Amino acid sequence: MRRLSPLFLSVAALVASAQTVQVSSQGQQCLDCHSNTTPGIVEQWRGSAHARNKVDCYTCHRANEKDPAAFDHYGLKIAVIVTPTYCARCHTKEVEQFEVSHHAKAAQFIGSLDNMLGEIVEGGPAAVNGCRQCHGSEVKYLGDGKFHPDTWPNSGIGRVNPDGSRGTCAACHGRHAFSSAQARQPENCGKCHMGPDHPQIEIYNESKHGIQFRANIAKMNLESKSWIVGKDYSAAPTCATCHMSATSNQPVTHDVGDRISFTLRPVVSFKLENWEKRRAAMQDVCSNCHASGWVENFYKQYESTVDLYNEKFAKPAKAIMDKLYAAGKLSKTPFDEKIEWTFYELWHHQGRRARMGTAMMGPDYTQWHGFYEVAKTFYTEFIPEAERLMPGVSQDVMATDYHKWTKGLTKGGSSSRSSSTKRDTTSNAQQSAPSIQPVPGRLRKKLDGLRVLGRARGREPPEQSRSMPIIPLIFVIPRSGATRNLLFRIFCSLLVSNVAVQG
Amino acid sequence: MRRLSPLFLSVAALVASAQTVQVSSQGQQCLDCHSNTTPGIVEQWRGSAHARNKVDCYTCHRANEKDPAAFDHYGLKIAVIVTPTYCARCHTKEVEQFEVSHHAKAAQFIGSLDNMLGEIVEGGPAAVNGCRQCHGSEVKYLGDGKFHPDTWPNSGIGRVNPDGSRGTCAACHGRHAFSSAQARQPENCGKCHMGPDHPQIEIYNESKHGIQFRANIAKMNLESKSWIVGKDYSAAPTCATCHMSATSNQPVTHDVGDRISFTLRPVVSFKLENWEKRRAAMQDVCSNCHASGWVENFYKQYESTVDLYNEKFAKPAKAIMDKLYAAGKLSKTPFDEKIEWTFYELWHHQGRRARMGTAMMGPDYTQWHGFYEVAKTFYTEFIPEAERLMPGVSQDVMATDYHKWTKGLTKGGSSSRSSSTKRDTTSNAQQSAPSIQPVPGRLRKKLDGLRVLGRARGREPPEQSRSMPIIPLIFVIPRSGATRNLLFRIFCSLLVSNVAVQG
Amino acid sequence: MRRLSPLFLSVAALVASAQTVQVSSQGQQCLDCHSNTTPGIVEQWRGSAHARNKVDCYTCHRANEKDPAAFDHYGLKIAVIVTPTYCARCHTKEVEQFEVSHHAKAAQFIGSLDNMLGEIVEGGPAAVNGCRQCHGSEVKYLGDGKFHPDTWPNSGIGRVNPDGSRGTCAACHGRHAFSSAQARQPENCGKCHMGPDHPQIEIYNESKHGIQFRANIAKMNLESKSWIVGKDYSAAPTCATCHMSATSNQPVTHDVGDRISFTLRPVVSFKLENWEKRRAAMQDVCSNCHASGWVENFYKQYESTVDLYNEKFAKPAKAIMDKLYAAGKLSKTPFDEKIEWTFYELWHHQGRRARMGTAMMGPDYTQWHGFYEVAKTFYTEFIPEAERLMPGVSQDVMATDYHKWTKGLTKGGSSSRSSSTKRDTTSNAQQSAPSIQPVPGRLRKKLDGLRVLGRARGREPPEQSRSMPIIPLIFVIPRSGATRNLLFRIFCSLLVSNVAVQG
Repeated sequence: MRRLSPLFLSVAALVASAQTVQVSSQGQQCLDCHSNTTPGIVEQWRGSAHARNKVDCYTCHRANEKDPAAFDHYGLKIAVIVTPTYCARCHTKEVEQFEVSHHAKAAQFIGSLDNMLGEIVEGGPAAVNGCRQCHGSEVKYLGDGKFHPDTWPNSGIGRVNPDGSRGTCAACHGRHAFSSAQARQPENCGKCHMGPDHPQIEIYNESKHGIQFRANIAKMNLESKSWIVGKDYSAAPTCATCHMSATSNQPVTHDVGDRISFTLRPVVSFKLENWEKRRAAMQDVCSNCHASGWVENFYKQYESTVDLYNEKFAKPAKAIMDKLYAAGKLSKTPFDEKIEWTFYELWHHQGRRARMGTAMMGPDYTQWHGFYEVAKTFYTEFIPEAERLMPGVSQDVMATDYHKWTKGLTKGGSSSRSSSTKRDTTSNAQQSAPSIQPVPGRLRKKLDGLRVLGRARGREPPEQSRSMPIIPLIFVIPRSGATRNLLFRIFCSLLVSNVAVQG
Repeated sequence: MRRLSPLFLSVAALVASAQTVQVSSQGQQCLDCHSNTTPGIVEQWRGSAHARNKVDCYTCHRANEKDPAAFDHYGLKIAVIVTPTYCARCHTKEVEQFEVSHHAKAAQFIGSLDNMLGEIVEGGPAAVNGCRQCHGSEVKYLGDGKFHPDTWPNSGIGRVNPDGSRGTCAACHGRHAFSSAQARQPENCGKCHMGPDHPQIEIYNESKHGIQFRANIAKMNLESKSWIVGKDYSAAPTCATCHMSATSNQPVTHDVGDRISFTLRPVVSFKLENWEKRRAAMQDVCSNCHASGWVENFYKQYESTVDLYNEKFAKPAKAIMDKLYAAGKLSKTPFDEKIEWTFYELWHHQGRRARMGTAMMGPDYTQWHGFYEVAKTFYTEFIPEAERLMPGVSQDVMATDYHKWTKGLTKGGSSSRSSSTKRDTTSNAQQSAPSIQPVPGRLRKKLDGLRVLGRARGREPPEQSRSMPIIPLIFVIPRSGATRNLLFRIFCSLLVSNVAVQG
Repeated sequence: MRRLSPLFLSVAALVASAQTVQVSSQGQQCLDCHSNTTPGIVEQWRGSAHARNKVDCYTCHRANEKDPAAFDHYGLKIAVIVTPTYCARCHTKEVEQFEVSHHAKAAQFIGSLDNMLGEIVEGGPAAVNGCRQCHGSEVKYLGDGKFHPDTWPNSGIGRVNPDGSRGTCAACHGRHAFSSAQARQPENCGKCHMGPDHPQIEIYNESKHGIQFRANIAKMNLESKSWIVGKDYSAAPTCATCHMSATSNQPVTHDVGDRISFTLRPVVSFKLENWEKRRAAMQDVCSNCHASGWVENFYKQYESTVDLYNEKFAKPAKAIMDKLYAAGKLSKTPFDEKIEWTFYELWHHQGRRARMGTAMMGPDYTQWHGFYEVAKTFYTEFIPEAERLMPGVSQDVMATDYHKWTKGLTKGGSSSRSSSTKRDTTSNAQQSAPSIQPVPGRLRKKLDGLRVLGRARGREPPEQSRSMPIIPLIFVIPRSGATRNLLFRIFCSLLVSNVAVQG
């Protein structure tokens, strides 16, 4: 044989996947029936590392002594649900790591607003088929290998199993291949980490990381047992790379939150316990591809975004809600007044998107799906709704530097004055303060922008696409000083006149 | 030659695709020009099964006697549009199946609200370039191989062709490769089955099925002529697998709705004619990878969701709309009052997402894109809008057990009383009844949840992220009985006090 | 060696990627450290065309004389940021093309509404991490190889670099592989061209083009140096194919807007300078796979959509905004009144989706994400908000044929009269006029539709899913004339009666 056609390779691959595997006599008994009744999962298993290592159906499904869901199935004592306790018979370390993770506690969101929504506002089946398919159900065994349909099928990551263990390895290592390669792929995490309130997969797909992954999936070495970034692969990071997988300096972990320093989940974000250690672990991953200056600056950008969200929108909105509750303007029942929904989306949906978008470098999620929506909701829904319930409740908030722009930029009023306050932007911690800052860089850019707007560009829109006259303004701008500040004020007025309904 | 580089394999693949193919003299005449004028489609064809089987341009484009769109093209009588009638010259069975399918009738949505929207509210070109590119146009032939631009290009699945036939095989088997492998891939269906009102591709991508597909596409054996699930492939199901392709027990079908038992399209869902037979056909597919207990429970989960949607939201909302029309509070013109848009999105967008999300196991579509939106629209838009139009119109609806929670959970009022009614949840058909049920499973979970909420977790949020004091509550809960019910009532009060603006 | 296992091929590929490459002594100095400190990017480079062509770290990072950001790094004068000026040392032509492109000016959106939003309404960090990560920052060098964190990391396509050059090649040719294959893939463009205001990647993914790409990626020959559509590949076009890459008739260009004839960006769309030439360049791409009649008709469909958007929604809405500003009903500060957000989304988000959806043939974006949203916003938000601010302001607009339907279709009033006006639909330029036209084609379709609605279909919904009685109407319809017009009027009444709350 001298030449190999691509066809041959496909055949070879098929032969490989249909390899004869050694199984126990009990395992053979399983296969005798299930090769016919559920051939798909038998085939998945045949192509798996389990099959190659003589781990058969019975190895995993053989019931533990204390499992209340054990039952007799054609003479063998088995369990339908293979819990982490079962997997730990071989994969002890992985299960131990998982058990202390945030993932293992995912079913315990009862008592939260989210659960209130699912169970009561929407209704039980919405929680069964929505919430709990990610968070996990509390599986109720009915005997004879059967389960209550409200609780199973369920592969939620925090599932409470009949044997008391929490979670399911199959949430990520899909039955019955239980492949590491699959768990390393971003879609795997996207089963739950998606949608309006935590669009991690969408953000990843937008990010450079996601783009590099899609373009170079063949170079990702996903099937390799060792999977150390910068060593076994370097084309792109996946979710697993940053949050779980090994680097040259740290081992793989199944405690998925271990490298997260900020929580972006609650109304107001804060740093977690041991955040420096967590951050160092993440930065160790980053540094495989990014120089230290890059990583350091990125974290400053990230923090400034969280800070802006916290200080400009989240804390003020929360303070207003607290006042409304305290004044009895809202009942204690959640979600029975419109503003409760508005506030909920502000932080739980839009505010998370803004924060997570920056954390994972998806600019459209930071901006259009994030801060744009936050600002729109805050100014056009939340504040007016609050004012209707309790006139004056937002007065203090709206008088701060952050929100003064709403009082008008052109009338020489308070916001113009605020905008002439000097401010040191090199201090990154203060970045989220009012944006109307006549600091040299920003001012030069704004004026440059105006020049561009006014310059003939050879692609001039026809008459009807302009709403207001545009005055060409090309002049020399001093790099600093009082003249510059004056020019900035003039610019603001012109900007407001010119852009009103201009694209 | 002893070693094959990957490069060699690529070259081999290219050579294979550029194979010399045998064509008729008429076909050669086509190729002589079109290899230059439209080289892309010639190359697509060259790599196709058609080319390998001596089916050339003329074989397909040779005009049928009765086709009014036949015309003379350089001495050959041809048709630009190859209709199903043409394809049936070889693929008789497939076209026959297609002709009786829901797909073949897709252009006939005129008279529906959707068409009213496209043609009148939005305007003709929106229907031409939007609606009809999926549903299909009624192609108008202008003579000389030309068509009216309102009606062609169009590859909508229900297109009405000049020869009277309906549909186009190219909707799924893209020109000019006409590949089965492509039609088996989920993106193919996603051309139309996507977006706010029927996001099947988005749901699939979120589901375990989609994840397994993405991770294992190389193992899908997509190019194989025989494509029987569990036999020719087992890594994952695609849209085609479940709705069209063969199993060991049933052949491939081009009648795409054949295995669908419930319609999730209208305001209120219902079971289709012969739904038991349809369901059995689908369950035959499921059972290739899932045990019977799994499949049975899944269908219970699914039904409970449809039931919840129907009973809690769809029927009450429809009843209110009927009352508004009957009382003359709304004109008969659709979409001229805001509530008509609100109601439309409730069932046509959000309600479909909730139902389809469960049907295809995408939990975020069930919950965040589905029931969350349904509930939000219902409580914060639909009901208030209806009450503004006709005070009291929603009174009956809001007094039902489903909606009593809005009257307050903490005040010892009606909803507390309702929540103490005992109820048997093993009867799945009743699952969609009020969610505030003190049945043992749910109560234990709720109380567990509360304990978690109250427990110190080492990741305590700092002071500012808390809105209200959280009282640690760890106590022994009786498994049943009156004390348990009492505890549940206490829990509800505490829950409402504690979670008000808590994440 | 007689047989090659798939494993061997993977190994061969790995060996190939780990090839020994020749580097300069300075390059070797870089590698000595960076193989340890940032191994990922070293590996990316090792697998790159750069490495194969002896282009090493120092070749690119060697500082230009005049670069103010040059600094000494272990004895070598280098720059962290490799600007287009650096790339032009080899890739002169590509940089020259890029420099005159719209892309190179992307940072200059200051003075636009979008920048106002980011910098002021949302706040500085939102612009830093949102807007500017696509548009580009003005990089501020702090000395010693460090940059201001507000301005870097940044790979925005219009970035203003310390050396005065604009843009970054790494925006599309990701560091450090700088691969053409990656830049040819649609995800690459999707980094920025996505989201609510310019969902090009989402539209592409929905389109036939995207579907063919996903299904046939292995046939795309993406790694080939020459990449001429119809010659080197024909399975599908990507973003690059249509906007940048070579055809048999035109070379590759890095001036990305070169083949775009219409701008779909502003409030009102218009044709760009030299639009005929631009369109001809694009149509040359189309014609590789589509016959001239197809291409010609497609452009008519496209234009009719832009026309509908412009005439029915954009111009009227803009005229109303102008009146509100002129009458002093709105302040000059943008985004401080709700209607300014409503109008902004109408054209900037929804109106772009409608236009772009058609341009790239994604029907759901034309319809559900586009015109449906445009119409909903226009009728249920924009007009009512405008009327609240200034009663009567929309009177003229709402009296036009486009909007007369809102006055009722059933009452024999003005819209019925308007609908009986004859009209020639073969004149495509007029397509965007009122949609209620009793022209033969449309009328027949509408009546056909009604028949379908009224026909028993064997899948009859049960009683509760019907809101109103449906009268079976099967009768012979005259092809033209007064009877036909009368029938159409009757039809309209029936339609409105029947579909009110029907799916």
